[in-house]
Amino acid sequence: MNEGAICLLSGGLDSSVSAYIAKSQYDEIYALTITYGQRHEKEIESAKEIAASLNVKDHTIFQLNLDKFGGSSLLKKETNTIQKDISYEEIGKTIPSTYVPARNTIFLSLALAYAETKNADHIFIGVTAADYSGYPDCRPEYVDAYQRLINVATKKTIQGGKIVLHAPLLHLSKRDIVLAGKKLQVPFEKTWSCYQGLQHACGVCDSCQLRLKGFKEAKLKDPLVYHAYPAWY
Amino acid sequence: MNEGAICLLSGGLDSSVSAYIAKSQYDEIYALTITYGQRHEKEIESAKEIAASLNVKDHTIFQLNLDKFGGSSLLKKETNTIQKDISYEEIGKTIPSTYVPARNTIFLSLALAYAETKNADHIFIGVTAADYSGYPDCRPEYVDAYQRLINVATKKTIQGGKIVLHAPLLHLSKRDIVLAGKKLQVPFEKTWSCYQGLQHACGVCDSCQLRLKGFKEAKLKDPLVYHAYPAWY
Repeated sequence: MNEGAICLLSGGLDSSVSAYIAKSQYDEIYALTITYGQRHEKEIESAKEIAASLNVKDHTIFQLNLDKFGGSSLLKKETNTIQKDISYEEIGKTIPSTYVPARNTIFLSLALAYAETKNADHIFIGVTAADYSGYPDCRPEYVDAYQRLINVATKKTIQGGKIVLHAPLLHLSKRDIVLAGKKLQVPFEKTWSCYQGLQHACGVCDSCQLRLKGFKEAKLKDPLVYHAYPAWY
Repeated sequence: MNEGAICLLSGGLDSSVSAYIAKSQYDEIYALTITYGQRHEKEIESAKEIAASLNVKDHTIFQLNLDKFGGSSLLKKETNTIQKDISYEEIGKTIPSTYVPARNTIFLSLALAYAETKNADHIFIGVTAADYSGYPDCRPEYVDAYQRLINVATKKTIQGGKIVLHAPLLHLSKRDIVLAGKKLQVPFEKTWSCYQGLQHACGVCDSCQLRLKGFKEAKLKDPLVYHAYPAWY
């Protein structure tokens, strides 16, 4: 114990549960929220509330102009039209249009700089492979390759220190993530998963559907208010 | 041929020679210059001039607030005092104070996003292990680990495409880099290596000393003007 952990915290369900898991294991939590011109700025407000509830030692909000590179629908500043309703059976079969090139690779590199600066031994990222939406950088082989990179990449790790990459949700389903969050008393009402920038969660985007599916399967009520609910919910 | 290459281009000698090597092998060159609050903003002007002389398809200048994390003398906005003069025999024996946490890991992650967006098959970085100043992320094992990460990290690479990381200077001495640059007609007078933000290169910082050593051993004259020259030059 008495070790520090950097937690990548978007303010969504997964990263919040991941950060609460970190908090249950380590003393000093540092939250890192990266904004990259995504439409759902509401997540950042959620991240601030979750960081406060975690009583973090520091919360760094890092602005990144990923729109300079383009290449993802998440980066486009379009009108807030609701995406077409897709069944959740279709989710995860292809790489979705919301894929952001090298996103987690960039996020983890910033977390690594933060870890080295704060002398934190741990990095937590809330990626999940089970229900994963087809992102290449949310798979076990990706996490393993990143750990091997860390081992040779920093002053600390080549001088005998450790920086351990944790992806505690990697093999959990959305249902299991909701149950883990419940157990750790994650304030679900403060988290935000929707890809749309509406007043309430849209209930139809991939992210809303996966979240609602998780709550449904966990037999728990999602405290968030939704504009609409899928027929199966 | 007819393949694109992303070139990390600081405007220094090494990255400029690395980009000219890329240009000699591939048709479409994309330059990526990352500014991170370093004192030597002059490098950025150099990067623009080198990019122009390379006739790049695109030059992205990416601003990164690495000072948010701190941890390096390169990031401090102090007065431009000249560093203490150290002999070049001492260079490379320890990790210097100019080490920036996870710097190349961050730079390469941004290059990777750029490569995927532009559908470029190659990334060039001008790191060098021979004369290296003790940076962990300038070693062969680091470059190898990053390539293995790339192979599992992107939509393109997991769908059968390739993104190859090149570090053509990795095993070259500063002398060999100068000679390679000479052969490729790199406009040395447009490059900038000094860590200080003075009108001319200081001639005493690590970077100036390594550069002058390279020119001396290559038996060539460095066209840059220096405020001072080391006694051994």
